[in-house]
Amino acid sequence: MLSNFKVVLVETSHPGNIGAVARAMKNMQMHELRLVTPKFFPHADATARASGADDVLKSACVYPDLPAAIADCRIVLGASARDRTISWPALTARQCAEKWGGNPHNSPNIGLVFGRENSGLKNHELDLCHYLLRIPCNKAYSSLNLAAAVQVVCYELFVASGQEQTTNVGDQGEVPIATTEQMEAFYLHLQQTMADIGFLHPERSKSIMRRLRRIFNRTQLDTKELDILRGILRFSQNHNTK
Amino acid sequence: MLSNFKVVLVETSHPGNIGAVARAMKNMQMHELRLVTPKFFPHADATARASGADDVLKSACVYPDLPAAIADCRIVLGASARDRTISWPALTARQCAEKWGGNPHNSPNIGLVFGRENSGLKNHELDLCHYLLRIPCNKAYSSLNLAAAVQVVCYELFVASGQEQTTNVGDQGEVPIATTEQMEAFYLHLQQTMADIGFLHPERSKSIMRRLRRIFNRTQLDTKELDILRGILRFSQNHNTK
Repeated sequence: MLSNFKVVLVETSHPGNIGAVARAMKNMQMHELRLVTPKFFPHADATARASGADDVLKSACVYPDLPAAIADCRIVLGASARDRTISWPALTARQCAEKWGGNPHNSPNIGLVFGRENSGLKNHELDLCHYLLRIPCNKAYSSLNLAAAVQVVCYELFVASGQEQTTNVGDQGEVPIATTEQMEAFYLHLQQTMADIGFLHPERSKSIMRRLRRIFNRTQLDTKELDILRGILRFSQNHNTK
Repeated sequence: MLSNFKVVLVETSHPGNIGAVARAMKNMQMHELRLVTPKFFPHADATARASGADDVLKSACVYPDLPAAIADCRIVLGASARDRTISWPALTARQCAEKWGGNPHNSPNIGLVFGRENSGLKNHELDLCHYLLRIPCNKAYSSLNLAAAVQVVCYELFVASGQEQTTNVGDQGEVPIATTEQMEAFYLHLQQTMADIGFLHPERSKSIMRRLRRIFNRTQLDTKELDILRGILRFSQNHNTK
């Protein structure tokens, strides 16, 4: 999946960043990393920061220049934090994901090019790109760490690819939400119990019940939780009659 | 902006990660970092990785436990990569951003809690959270680097806050796109020039012109570019008549 996206790092100085990029990619199911004349590679720092994504690191290819690295790409995006004076079409990471992330199988090879840690991409490198790729951020402090930038872009592509199962973690081992009927039975039981234990004055019952309803309706009880609460009510009723 | 969001790191082992988190936060205009019993802090590695976000680091507060760190928060989200067996409501980073990022001024204090690098948050810590906070990712390799996770969440909040100016970089120093009238004048000029230089057979002119139109219409020329092209046409016409 997302195998048509190639992450290209140009002249990375810190090998640790290369490792962190490999991890960020694998987290988002991307695997093809291309390196244009990295300062140090392979390197122990890269392996350490990859932590489990060494397969991405191992299969990374090194290229002598950017044209070689993107030769098989039909669309090339160059990450850029700076505003450029030349007119150049720009896409945000999300726009890029919406455009190409949704249907990776039908998409051509797409190169995502990230420049040097300190100075980004040079103009002659951006000339090879079809779009600038921008990550929305604080204008006063706009330089993301290299791996952080790759993480955001790959994350957007992953979300757009629709691969993630959207079931909430909370939905697992799933207990159904209580029905209105079950909730009404619960409220009746609650009201009866409060009368039984002498808490509820008949004339105050309405406003108190309204408040209690507000609490429990908001909570969206599931049937198991409801069973527990009604168990408590039963015990409380029995206790009172002893 | 986004000042109601507090990033809380629980028992971070590597001080470098604390620095990288500070940078990730500042990139997305977030400033309040809270640390629950970090292993080492302050530390040179934290300062190095913060690179320009030392203000976030300097103002970070250290707390003896999680309850103290989130005492003033009305909503608490606990980042979790693992699927939990207990039923717990979960929000993705984007859902969280849509819920609270859009109108930060009217939002209560919200704690974003991130656990230990290796083991995340313990169950008794998650008990203090109203929601699990999930980042969609590769199920087979789901552990993001701590700072990468913070980066994605803060990025989503920043995007939802609508603070970023949506002007394309390419729109700067803005030259208007050519009007249809200007384009038609250009096509006429182009056709005339091709006839003048002897390129265009009258009977082939129609299909050639259609192809050329397709190219230049797709390109969305601005008026300056159009001037340049027409200059070239003029020179080409004059050259031929010499």
